[in-house]
Amino acid sequence: MLLDTIKKPDDIKKLDEKQTEQLCKELREELVKTVSKTGGHLASNLGAVELTVALHKNFNLPKDKIVFDVGHQCYIHKMLTGRLDKMETLRQMGGISGFPRPDESEYDAFIAGHASNSVSAAFGISEAKREKKDNGYVVAVVGDGAISGGLIYEGLNNAGRSKDNLIVVLNDNKMSISKNVGAMSRYLAKVRSRSSYHRFKVGTEKVLGHIPFIGRKLVRFAVKIKKALKGMFYTSTIFEDLGFVYLGPIDGHNLKKLDYMIKLAKNEQKPVLLHINTVKGKGYHPAEKTPNVFHGIGSFDIETGETADSLPNFSDEFGKALLGFAENDKRICAITAAMKESTGLEEFSKQFKSRFYDVGIAEGHAVTFASGLASGGMIPFFAVYSTFLQRAYDMIIHDAALQNLKVILAIDRAGIVGADGETHQGVFDVSFLNAIPNVTIYSPATFAELRFDMKKAIYNENGVVAIRYPRGNEVMLKNELKPADYYVLGNKKSDTVIVSYGREIGEVLKANETLNVKIVHFNKIKPIDKNAILEIAKAKKVYVFEEGMKSGGFAQTIAEKIFEKGFSGVFSITAIEKFVAHSTVAQALEKLSLDANGIINKIKGEA
Amino acid sequence: MLLDTIKKPDDIKKLDEKQTEQLCKELREELVKTVSKTGGHLASNLGAVELTVALHKNFNLPKDKIVFDVGHQCYIHKMLTGRLDKMETLRQMGGISGFPRPDESEYDAFIAGHASNSVSAAFGISEAKREKKDNGYVVAVVGDGAISGGLIYEGLNNAGRSKDNLIVVLNDNKMSISKNVGAMSRYLAKVRSRSSYHRFKVGTEKVLGHIPFIGRKLVRFAVKIKKALKGMFYTSTIFEDLGFVYLGPIDGHNLKKLDYMIKLAKNEQKPVLLHINTVKGKGYHPAEKTPNVFHGIGSFDIETGETADSLPNFSDEFGKALLGFAENDKRICAITAAMKESTGLEEFSKQFKSRFYDVGIAEGHAVTFASGLASGGMIPFFAVYSTFLQRAYDMIIHDAALQNLKVILAIDRAGIVGADGETHQGVFDVSFLNAIPNVTIYSPATFAELRFDMKKAIYNENGVVAIRYPRGNEVMLKNELKPADYYVLGNKKSDTVIVSYGREIGEVLKANETLNVKIVHFNKIKPIDKNAILEIAKAKKVYVFEEGMKSGGFAQTIAEKIFEKGFSGVFSITAIEKFVAHSTVAQALEKLSLDANGIINKIKGEA
Repeated sequence: MLLDTIKKPDDIKKLDEKQTEQLCKELREELVKTVSKTGGHLASNLGAVELTVALHKNFNLPKDKIVFDVGHQCYIHKMLTGRLDKMETLRQMGGISGFPRPDESEYDAFIAGHASNSVSAAFGISEAKREKKDNGYVVAVVGDGAISGGLIYEGLNNAGRSKDNLIVVLNDNKMSISKNVGAMSRYLAKVRSRSSYHRFKVGTEKVLGHIPFIGRKLVRFAVKIKKALKGMFYTSTIFEDLGFVYLGPIDGHNLKKLDYMIKLAKNEQKPVLLHINTVKGKGYHPAEKTPNVFHGIGSFDIETGETADSLPNFSDEFGKALLGFAENDKRICAITAAMKESTGLEEFSKQFKSRFYDVGIAEGHAVTFASGLASGGMIPFFAVYSTFLQRAYDMIIHDAALQNLKVILAIDRAGIVGADGETHQGVFDVSFLNAIPNVTIYSPATFAELRFDMKKAIYNENGVVAIRYPRGNEVMLKNELKPADYYVLGNKKSDTVIVSYGREIGEVLKANETLNVKIVHFNKIKPIDKNAILEIAKAKKVYVFEEGMKSGGFAQTIAEKIFEKGFSGVFSITAIEKFVAHSTVAQALEKLSLDANGIINKIKGEA
Repeated sequence: MLLDTIKKPDDIKKLDEKQTEQLCKELREELVKTVSKTGGHLASNLGAVELTVALHKNFNLPKDKIVFDVGHQCYIHKMLTGRLDKMETLRQMGGISGFPRPDESEYDAFIAGHASNSVSAAFGISEAKREKKDNGYVVAVVGDGAISGGLIYEGLNNAGRSKDNLIVVLNDNKMSISKNVGAMSRYLAKVRSRSSYHRFKVGTEKVLGHIPFIGRKLVRFAVKIKKALKGMFYTSTIFEDLGFVYLGPIDGHNLKKLDYMIKLAKNEQKPVLLHINTVKGKGYHPAEKTPNVFHGIGSFDIETGETADSLPNFSDEFGKALLGFAENDKRICAITAAMKESTGLEEFSKQFKSRFYDVGIAEGHAVTFASGLASGGMIPFFAVYSTFLQRAYDMIIHDAALQNLKVILAIDRAGIVGADGETHQGVFDVSFLNAIPNVTIYSPATFAELRFDMKKAIYNENGVVAIRYPRGNEVMLKNELKPADYYVLGNKKSDTVIVSYGREIGEVLKANETLNVKIVHFNKIKPIDKNAILEIAKAKKVYVFEEGMKSGGFAQTIAEKIFEKGFSGVFSITAIEKFVAHSTVAQALEKLSLDANGIINKIKGEA
């Protein structure tokens, strides 16, 4: 295999045209083979093969820097920078990350798990280079999905006024995860349909040079027109309005064109935006056909593209429950930030088209927009991954909570998420929402609790309500619990109490088969029920297990409340204090001592 | 006075042209008179007089909604909506707020203290109206400063694809607080210089209708040109690219033109952007001359425009200290988000031009950009108000802390800020930063501590370092303390301990003249010194006073740490649990029981 001879990116530079094409073919095959086993982000990487090869052909890493936006399109880059033999460890404990990681390789310039940060980071790196007189190029590779995020606009706005030869490659595949939405996306479609800008420019100048010469007046008019046309063709994209040189659009699977355009871009004395068109899933038929299915995927059969049947999960259950509520209550609407399918809202988007909003990758806007809807009398649900909700922190405070508006946050992927690793763990939400007044928080462990919480959010609560649930299936309980705000379980005579909430109850119950102590478990975690506090405060030993950050979390609140009630026994918190790397959820819980064994060891060890 | 006859906004509709002009004149005089006494945001309100009058003439509040962006331009609106006689209570305890507040008046549609939220909120309100078949207009009034924030781009991107007749008024005065920056601002300057769009459109069509007829070829060419020109003039602004009808630019102090354009805007079947040019400070000479001085101002002399000499303050001391460090270390750079003067960076921006960055109102970008600079080997300081840093919460986690990059956050206006009220209180930062790994936090009370902390941040710490200091002057201590991470003060034999950090030490020392107990006071609050914890844990009674949110704050961490060390005495936290309304800082501290009296009562009451 030619691919095996590429030990470092410079080896690509020696290949001729044919060999480079061969390399791309091999990269695709290898990629499909790997991801079919490990799972991961397939479709966007298939679309970025030629681009990544062309970049490595034209730049010298690590002196030059490539900053990938939404880093899941970095697999090809990893395969070309000495990590080919580690691809089978992708996203697994101790293996390589599914995102760029500067501490994994000197060829990775910057971390990227959340969208739209590349231009800001790349501009920072570029300015540092300028200040240190360290020449070399900085390239940001942006998907068109990321272009809906406000952060990228802030980055373009700032960089566009500089003289840095920052090169932004817009890898336009008409999709982020779902199909792209928003005015900018429609605008890009318009630009896409134009013929290549560079060719056009040359052509126009030729035509203008041959206008027939008929009298002075007309000449003057022609000159005016020429200027006008120049103005039109030279400053006709948003990116040029923002100070960038615009090149493209070109076919992003054509190695020759890519090579030519990248060389042009390198010669500019100011920021450049290079617009390339690619096909998400390119070269693997099942992924081309349904790129959203192959966006982030588990293992699959290469021949058929079929994945294992997935178990029931909270996202789907949320979507189903919301349909029911929306049918009976016209005030209910649903918002997603470019995650319609993965947050379970696909059916809602069909049945209640006028009450469904995909706002693009724009979590901040989603919350402020929801606040507007709420102030107009609607009941908006914003379904969003915990980690991405971090982008809307200020909007939750300033636009929703401060006005005590009923905005319901359906927080998906709360807690440990597994293979996506530290950029994606949903471990901050309880902590940051706890500090905000006028916010109620539920953390269901079962689908029945989820429905119970949604109903209470709609009809019983005021202000902001967060309902946070983990990735995947509900906790399977031996005896069904009638949904409530909290439960007292286990050995009710024990003066040792385990306190937990949400999914952690699964591990707690398993541990309690050995421990046989009392359990106080919560579904509603803010505000905390006063009787539950009294129940806990009367114990001699209290152990709280929390799948979230310790500082500001649920456990610290429990501590404060029971000490206020005069508790003076043993008190212990097991929670998260550091960033949590990629692994399976079970492995992460074990490492954090949040699994059944960890719980047993903690309590027996101190007994 | 004509103004006295305006009891509700509809009364404006009865005025003739002359009377309306007279009203504007009176509004200006009254505004200058009021703000000269109360302090507040003067210059932007002077620029919005005609606009506000024209809006109330053309819309019917509260059925129609006006959403002000950066609500400090709402004073004229307040004067016209039944609050004229309350203007002298502006920004004072129990008086009217300096920002729109729906709970203050039915004429205020949405809160606004942080920039760029108006389009998102207004679009939400507009969609709610559509869904409820409740007709009526929604208007967002945006300053051009707010146009640099990513949130507004996300809002435009989402709204631009709708069919709502949402009207966005871009009130362009070339300034936010400082002079505007960024590519978008340069772009607006270009647009501003064009003649009015509406007039131009008509003119162009006339010209094109009179092109001389010379042979078929030329006709065809002319038709092509005509189309091209049409394309140029009809889709030539970014706003049109984003799906808005663009109207303007017009003189925003010309009542007739405003009236005409607003009527045009109301007739569209889709979102409209109306671009008006105004002069910040219009009609009051001192404010026109130095609008940044009259942006947010204390009381002043109307005749001369002179303000009282201000006391030394943390912002200036920070700026001075940074100059010193930057002189000796070329890695140091400074970033502001449109707040050069008020964060003390004016001199830095002159002396170290190439290392100074004003990124516009774009706090998220500022942190990611700083992370890029840091990853390139620079040492960036981002000087920002605590309340606005909330916008960068995710970027601190994802772009800075996760990669353990040395980004130094100089957090100004930390703690209670006073008259600006609940949208501006800097009370969340300790709580949200506490939960983020790889973050160190300092909270100096004196200028000497500030310099000490900055030096440690530059040369001793790793990762993200936050240095947070209050608005205004340092705490005056009787005996100077040699800067350290923490101090043990007061009666060292007492088994009652008061724990505090930052500015609160002023009140604690005052209280201790009566109490005579031990004090453990902190300058470095994360991580907390282990010896200090032991010192506190050996007491019998511990009282923590914190000028910040309780949940996730410093006090909860103290609680957890001392209980871990076996503390079993009385423990009490006095901290903030609700939003804090406008008043003076002293009044707020009193209300929160964080003043000397509150401290005495707390400790004596429980003794």
